[in-house]
Amino acid sequence: MLDKSKARDLMLQRKREKKLTWEEISKHIGRSPVYTSMLLYGYGQATEEEAEGLVKILELPPEYKEVLMDVPMRTPSQPWPPTDPFVYRLYEAVLLYGPAIKDVAHEMFGDGIMSMIDVMIDVDKVKDEKGNERMLLKFNGKWLKYSRW
Amino acid sequence: MLDKSKARDLMLQRKREKKLTWEEISKHIGRSPVYTSMLLYGYGQATEEEAEGLVKILELPPEYKEVLMDVPMRTPSQPWPPTDPFVYRLYEAVLLYGPAIKDVAHEMFGDGIMSMIDVMIDVDKVKDEKGNERMLLKFNGKWLKYSRW
Amino acid sequence: MLDKSKARDLMLQRKREKKLTWEEISKHIGRSPVYTSMLLYGYGQATEEEAEGLVKILELPPEYKEVLMDVPMRTPSQPWPPTDPFVYRLYEAVLLYGPAIKDVAHEMFGDGIMSMIDVMIDVDKVKDEKGNERMLLKFNGKWLKYSRW
Amino acid sequence: MLDKSKARDLMLQRKREKKLTWEEISKHIGRSPVYTSMLLYGYGQATEEEAEGLVKILELPPEYKEVLMDVPMRTPSQPWPPTDPFVYRLYEAVLLYGPAIKDVAHEMFGDGIMSMIDVMIDVDKVKDEKGNERMLLKFNGKWLKYSRW
Amino acid sequence: MLDKSKARDLMLQRKREKKLTWEEISKHIGRSPVYTSMLLYGYGQATEEEAEGLVKILELPPEYKEVLMDVPMRTPSQPWPPTDPFVYRLYEAVLLYGPAIKDVAHEMFGDGIMSMIDVMIDVDKVKDEKGNERMLLKFNGKWLKYSRW
Amino acid sequence: MLDKSKARDLMLQRKREKKLTWEEISKHIGRSPVYTSMLLYGYGQATEEEAEGLVKILELPPEYKEVLMDVPMRTPSQPWPPTDPFVYRLYEAVLLYGPAIKDVAHEMFGDGIMSMIDVMIDVDKVKDEKGNERMLLKFNGKWLKYSRW
Amino acid sequence: MLDKSKARDLMLQRKREKKLTWEEISKHIGRSPVYTSMLLYGYGQATEEEAEGLVKILELPPEYKEVLMDVPMRTPSQPWPPTDPFVYRLYEAVLLYGPAIKDVAHEMFGDGIMSMIDVMIDVDKVKDEKGNERMLLKFNGKWLKYSRW
Amino acid sequence: MLDKSKARDLMLQRKREKKLTWEEISKHIGRSPVYTSMLLYGYGQATEEEAEGLVKILELPPEYKEVLMDVPMRTPSQPWPPTDPFVYRLYEAVLLYGPAIKDVAHEMFGDGIMSMIDVMIDVDKVKDEKGNERMLLKFNGKWLKYSRW
Amino acid sequence: MLDKSKARDLMLQRKREKKLTWEEISKHIGRSPVYTSMLLYGYGQATEEEAEGLVKILELPPEYKEVLMDVPMRTPSQPWPPTDPFVYRLYEAVLLYGPAIKDVAHEMFGDGIMSMIDVMIDVDKVKDEKGNERMLLKFNGKWLKYSRW
Amino acid sequence: MLDKSKARDLMLQRKREKKLTWEEISKHIGRSPVYTSMLLYGYGQATEEEAEGLVKILELPPEYKEVLMDVPMRTPSQPWPPTDPFVYRLYEAVLLYGPAIKDVAHEMFGDGIMSMIDVMIDVDKVKDEKGNERMLLKFNGKWLKYSRW
Repeated sequence: MLDKSKARDLMLQRKREKKLTWEEISKHIGRSPVYTSMLLYGYGQATEEEAEGLVKILELPPEYKEVLMDVPMRTPSQPWPPTDPFVYRLYEAVLLYGPAIKDVAHEMFGDGIMSMIDVMIDVDKVKDEKGNERMLLKFNGKWLKYSRW
Repeated sequence: MLDKSKARDLMLQRKREKKLTWEEISKHIGRSPVYTSMLLYGYGQATEEEAEGLVKILELPPEYKEVLMDVPMRTPSQPWPPTDPFVYRLYEAVLLYGPAIKDVAHEMFGDGIMSMIDVMIDVDKVKDEKGNERMLLKFNGKWLKYSRW
Repeated sequence: MLDKSKARDLMLQRKREKKLTWEEISKHIGRSPVYTSMLLYGYGQATEEEAEGLVKILELPPEYKEVLMDVPMRTPSQPWPPTDPFVYRLYEAVLLYGPAIKDVAHEMFGDGIMSMIDVMIDVDKVKDEKGNERMLLKFNGKWLKYSRW
Repeated sequence: MLDKSKARDLMLQRKREKKLTWEEISKHIGRSPVYTSMLLYGYGQATEEEAEGLVKILELPPEYKEVLMDVPMRTPSQPWPPTDPFVYRLYEAVLLYGPAIKDVAHEMFGDGIMSMIDVMIDVDKVKDEKGNERMLLKFNGKWLKYSRW
Repeated sequence: MLDKSKARDLMLQRKREKKLTWEEISKHIGRSPVYTSMLLYGYGQATEEEAEGLVKILELPPEYKEVLMDVPMRTPSQPWPPTDPFVYRLYEAVLLYGPAIKDVAHEMFGDGIMSMIDVMIDVDKVKDEKGNERMLLKFNGKWLKYSRW
Repeated sequence: MLDKSKARDLMLQRKREKKLTWEEISKHIGRSPVYTSMLLYGYGQATEEEAEGLVKILELPPEYKEVLMDVPMRTPSQPWPPTDPFVYRLYEAVLLYGPAIKDVAHEMFGDGIMSMIDVMIDVDKVKDEKGNERMLLKFNGKWLKYSRW
Repeated sequence: MLDKSKARDLMLQRKREKKLTWEEISKHIGRSPVYTSMLLYGYGQATEEEAEGLVKILELPPEYKEVLMDVPMRTPSQPWPPTDPFVYRLYEAVLLYGPAIKDVAHEMFGDGIMSMIDVMIDVDKVKDEKGNERMLLKFNGKWLKYSRW
Repeated sequence: MLDKSKARDLMLQRKREKKLTWEEISKHIGRSPVYTSMLLYGYGQATEEEAEGLVKILELPPEYKEVLMDVPMRTPSQPWPPTDPFVYRLYEAVLLYGPAIKDVAHEMFGDGIMSMIDVMIDVDKVKDEKGNERMLLKFNGKWLKYSRW
Repeated sequence: MLDKSKARDLMLQRKREKKLTWEEISKHIGRSPVYTSMLLYGYGQATEEEAEGLVKILELPPEYKEVLMDVPMRTPSQPWPPTDPFVYRLYEAVLLYGPAIKDVAHEMFGDGIMSMIDVMIDVDKVKDEKGNERMLLKFNGKWLKYSRW
Repeated sequence: MLDKSKARDLMLQRKREKKLTWEEISKHIGRSPVYTSMLLYGYGQATEEEAEGLVKILELPPEYKEVLMDVPMRTPSQPWPPTDPFVYRLYEAVLLYGPAIKDVAHEMFGDGIMSMIDVMIDVDKVKDEKGNERMLLKFNGKWLKYSRW
C-alpha cells in the first residue's frame, strides 16, 4: 500500500533528478519552502491545489495526489535523540534554554503556549557586519491560553 | 558550596520579590531578555560588568558576582523529555520537522550547521491580521562549515 | 523558596484536615472539580479571585495567593510510565487506541488536533441498566487546524 | 501467515478505495465508529456477525472472517511515546493530569479503577457559543473495586 | 505530611520489633498474609476494622488509622526492572511465558483478561515426592470480557 | 536456516488449521497445556518423544523434530514492557506486589528464591459463589537456598 | 530505621579504620573473601555465627547482628549500566560473549542454567610465564535443569 | 556483502549438520572451546591457520577464510538486557556482586582492571560431594594498572 | 534509491576487494586517512574532486559521484551505547573524564567549546621507551566562544 | 563517611578560593594538568607523594590524604547522555566517527584496542594560520591485542 512514508522517498528522488530547489517547488504551489518541504516529508495534509501542483512539477504518478491529501500520522524521519549535528543543535537549545525562553514568554503573554499547529516556520540567510553568513530560523505561532471551566 | 544552580533559586526569588521584569533587568545590563534569563538560569559566563549589574539590581550577596562569572556546566533545569506543554511544543518541532528544516537550510548554505554557541535567541509578540496574539521566536546563529584535512 | 510543588503538599493536607471535598472547594470558587484539583496540584495559573477563594477556604498562609497565581512549569506528580492501575488504564487507552481515535476524529474534522490547552475535563458517575457504577470521563477541547504559509 | 497486523493494512486500503466512512461501516455492523475502527486496527475479537458484516462491506477475502474473530495480541500501531501531535495531546493529559483525575474519581467512587476492558469510547463534534468546533472524547468504563481476601 | 510510604517504614519496623509474623497479623484482622502485607506496603485502602486492627496489634500512633484508610497512589517499592533475584524470577516468567499463558487462557475463556483488581494472591509451601520444599504462588482473578458498543 | 522462531509460526498455523486445542495437543504428548504451549512458542528443549509427538499431531515436516529438541535462546515473543492488557496485568502484579509476596515467602522459607527453571505453571477456570468465571494461575517452583562458601 | 544499606556504610568504614583486610575478616568467620564482602555489602543473610563474628571483629553496635541476619532486598550499589571500568569489563564479557559461553555449556550439560543462587565466587592472583600478574575469577554454580510437567 | 554476522549463521548450521562439537572443532584448530565458539560467533580475528582449519573442518566456501580473518565490529548476538535465563544469571552477578568482587580484587592488586582483551575464558563441568553437576566458569585476565603522566 | 548508507557498503567492499588501504585512498584524493574514512562511511559532503577521485580509485558506478557530494544526514553506523570494545573505550573517556577535560580547557580558553564541525581528527602509531606500540588519537578543533546579545 | 565524591567538592572549592590553576597544582605534584584534574575529580588512586602534595597546596584536612589514596569507584560527575555542549561535542565524535576511527586504527595495528587504563590525556592550545585559537586534545594509549587460548 502506498503511504506517505513510501511516497516521500520517490518525491525526494524526483526533486533530485529534476534538480528542483525547494524555492522553485514552493513558488510553483504558492507556499513557503519549509512548508513545502514538510508536505513532501509527509507532515501535512495538502489541499487539492497543492497536491495537483506537486504531482505536476515533480511528474508523480496520479495516485500521489490522494496520498498527499491524506491526513498524516506524524512520525519522525530521523533517529531520536537526534544524532545529526544540524538537528542536535536545535535539540540542545530546547533541552537547555527551553525554560528560559518559557519564562520570558510568560512575562509577555501570561500562561499558555505558542501553538505548533497554527505555526509558520521560516529559514533565512543573513550576514553579520563582517560578512559572515548566519542562519535565521523563525517560529511564528498563535498564542493559546489555558481554558477555565 | 555556592554554585550556579543554588544561585539560580535566590536570583529568581529576588526578581519576583522586587517585581522586576526580564525587560527591566536586561536593560539594566544592556543585553536582551532571553540572554539575561539564560544568565540567571546559569547557562552563561557573565562578564564582570554583567555580573556587577545583576548583583546591584537584584541586591545579591557579593559572592554572587564570582559565581555569575564562572564557566557553567550546562545541565537541564527541567525533566526530559520535556513535560511542560510550552517546552514540549518546541521539542515536537525539532522531533518532527528537524529534517525538513535541515534540508531547506542545506539548499541555502551547503553542508554545515547553525551554531548554538554563537547564536542569538529572541522572543517577540506580534499580531495577526485579526488582532490575535502570536509569539515570534528567532534563532540567529553563525553558519559553520565542516573542515577538510 | 515556596513553589507550586511545596504548596501542593500543604494544600492537600489542609483539604484532608478540613474534610473538604473537591465538590465543595470547586463550588466555593465557581469552577469544576477537575479544574480545581488541577489548580491545587499545580497545573494552572489561578486568577486573583480563584487564588483568594482557595486561600480562604483552605485557610492557607497569605503568600499562597501569589504562588497560585504563578505560571506553572508543568511536571508530573507521579512516576512515568504510570504504575498506579487507575492512571495506567488511561495510558493503555492512548497507547493502544490512540490511532483508532485519531482516525475517527480526522474523518469528522480533517487534519488537526483536539487542544489540550483550551480543554475542559470532567468526571461523572453513571449507572448501567443493571445499576452497576460506571465512570464517565470527558475531554472537550477546541479543534485546531494546521496552518499553511 | 495472515495475522491481524497484515489484515489491517488491506482493510484500511479497502475502506479508502471504496470511500467508506467509519460512520457507514459501523452502521453496517450495528456498532459505534470507534469500536469499529478498533476492530479494523486489530484491537478486538469480532463476533461472527461483525466479522461477516465487515467481510461483506469491505469485500474482503473469506479468510479474513476467521482473522477478525481471533483473540488479538494487542500491540501499538504507532511509535511510543507518541510523536503524532493528535495522540501526544491525549498522552500529555494522562502524564500531567492523571493524578488530579484519579483524586476526583476516588472521592466519588472510593478505591478502584475505571475498567479499560468493559469500556465504551466515543468521539463527537460539538460547537462552542461562538460556533467554533470542539471535539468531545468520552470514556465510559465500569468501575471496579479492589477485592479483599 | 504522613503518607503511606512513610507509614510503611514505621509499620515494618514495629512488625520486626514485636516479632510478629504476617500469619499472626493477618489472623488478627481476619485476612490472608499477602493481602495484609499489601496493606502495610501501602497498596490497599483498609476498611475501618482493618485499620483499627492494625493500629492495635502494631501499637501505631492513632493518625495511622486514617492513613491506612486512604486511597493509595500505587508506586513500586523496589527498583525496576527488578534486581532482586526473588522478584526477577517472577518478572522473567511474565517476560518469556506471558504470551504462552495468554494463549492457553484465551482457549478457555475467549478474549478478555484476568483482573488484577478483583484478584486474590496466595503463597504456600508444598513438598515434592522427595520432600524438597516448593513454593506455590496462586493468582485467582475475575475474568473480564471486553465490551462491545 | 530453520530456527525456533520460524518454527513457531508454522506450528501455530497448523494448530489453527487443524483446529486442535492446547488441551488436545498436550494430552497427545502427555504434558500439561502451558508446558506444551511453551514448547511450541520455543521456550523449551523437547525430549525425543515430545518432539515426535508434536511432529505427528501437527503433521510437521520431519526437520522440525530436531528444531524442537534444540536448546533454545529464550527471547520474548512480545513487545516489552508488555502492551497487551492480559500480559500487562501480570506485569503490574510483579511491579507493585513483588516485594510483598517476597516478604511473605521469606517468612515461610528464609532467604532464597522460587526457581523459574524447576517450575510448573498451570491455568485453570474456577467459579466464584455467584457463578462468575475466575482464572486461577499457579506457579509451583522449587525453593532454592543461597549457598555459603 | 537501620537497614542493610545504612549498615554497609558503617561496616565498610570500620573495616578501613581498623585496617582489616577481606582476607582477615573472612578467616575470622570461616568463609571466603568474596562471600564475606557480599555479606557486608548487604547481599546475604548471615547465620547467627557469621553475624556474631562480624559484630565482634568490626566492633559494631549490637543491633547490627539482627540486620546482618535479615533477608536482603538485593539492589545494586553502583550505577547501571556500570560506569566503573573494572565492573564494565565483566559486563562487556556477558554482553558480547554470553551466547558463546551458553552454547559451549549446553553442549556439556544440555538445557538449563548455572545457578546464581547456589554459587561460589572466588578471586585469585596468578602469574603468567613472564611473571605478569593476572586475575582469576571463578564462578562455580549448581547446574539446574528445566522441569517438565 | 558477506560479513561476520551472515557467516555466523552458515557456520553454526554446518556445525549442526556435521554434528561436530565445540570440543572437536577446537581441537582441530588447537584452541579451547570457548575461544573457538567466539571465533564462529564473530568476536575474534582468526589467524590464517585458524581460518583455514575452520574452513576445512566445516567445509565452508573459500571466501569464509578472509571473513574469519577480518577485524570484527563486536556487537551483541542477543537482546539486551539479556532475556535468556542462562545469560541473565551472569548479568545478575555483575549487577549485584560487581562492586564486592571489585573490592576484593583491589585489595589484592591495587587500582586497575582485569583485562577483557588479554583474557582467557573457560567452561568446565565439576561435581559436588553428592555427585551433582556444577558448572565452573573461569575468567583469567591480565591485570592492568592505571598510568600516571 | 541509492543513498549514503547503501553506498557505504559497496565502497567498503570495493576497498577490500582491491586491497586498498586508507593510506592509499587518502593520498589519492589528497586528504588524511580519517577524513577519507569518514567520507566513505557517509559523514561528509565530498567536493567534486574528492568524489571523482573516489569513484576512480574504487571503480565505482558513476552515480556514486553525486551521492558522495550530497549533504549527509549523519546517523550512527554502530549500536549505541557502543558495544565494540575499541569504541567503548573512547566513550568511557567522555563519560568519566569529560568534566575534567572541560575544566582544564576552560582554564585555558574561558567559556566555549572545541568545535566538532571545524575539526581535524588523526590517528598515529607511536612507541614508548620499551618499544611497545601506543595509539595516538588527536582532535584539533576551532575554539568557539559563546555570543552575547 | 568522607568519600571521594564529598572530597571533590571541598577540593574544588579550595582551588577556587586559593585561585590556583590546574597548571600550578599539577606542577606542584609533578604531573600533567588533566591527570591532576582527574585526581581531584576522584578518578584516580593518588600515590603517597601526590596525596601529600595535594593536601599541602590545597591546605586540606589531613584525612584527605587517605581518601586521595583510595581506589575509586568511577562514576560520572555529569548527566548522561551529556547535556553540556563542551562534553556533548566529544560524545558526538564517538557516536558518529567511532567506527571510522576504529577502521583506520585496525589498518595500522590489527585487532585490539587503545587502552583507556594505560593512557595519557592532554589538552593544548594551538593557533591556525590566521591566528584563531584551536584546542588540541590528545589521547595516547597503549595498544592491547586480543589473546588466544
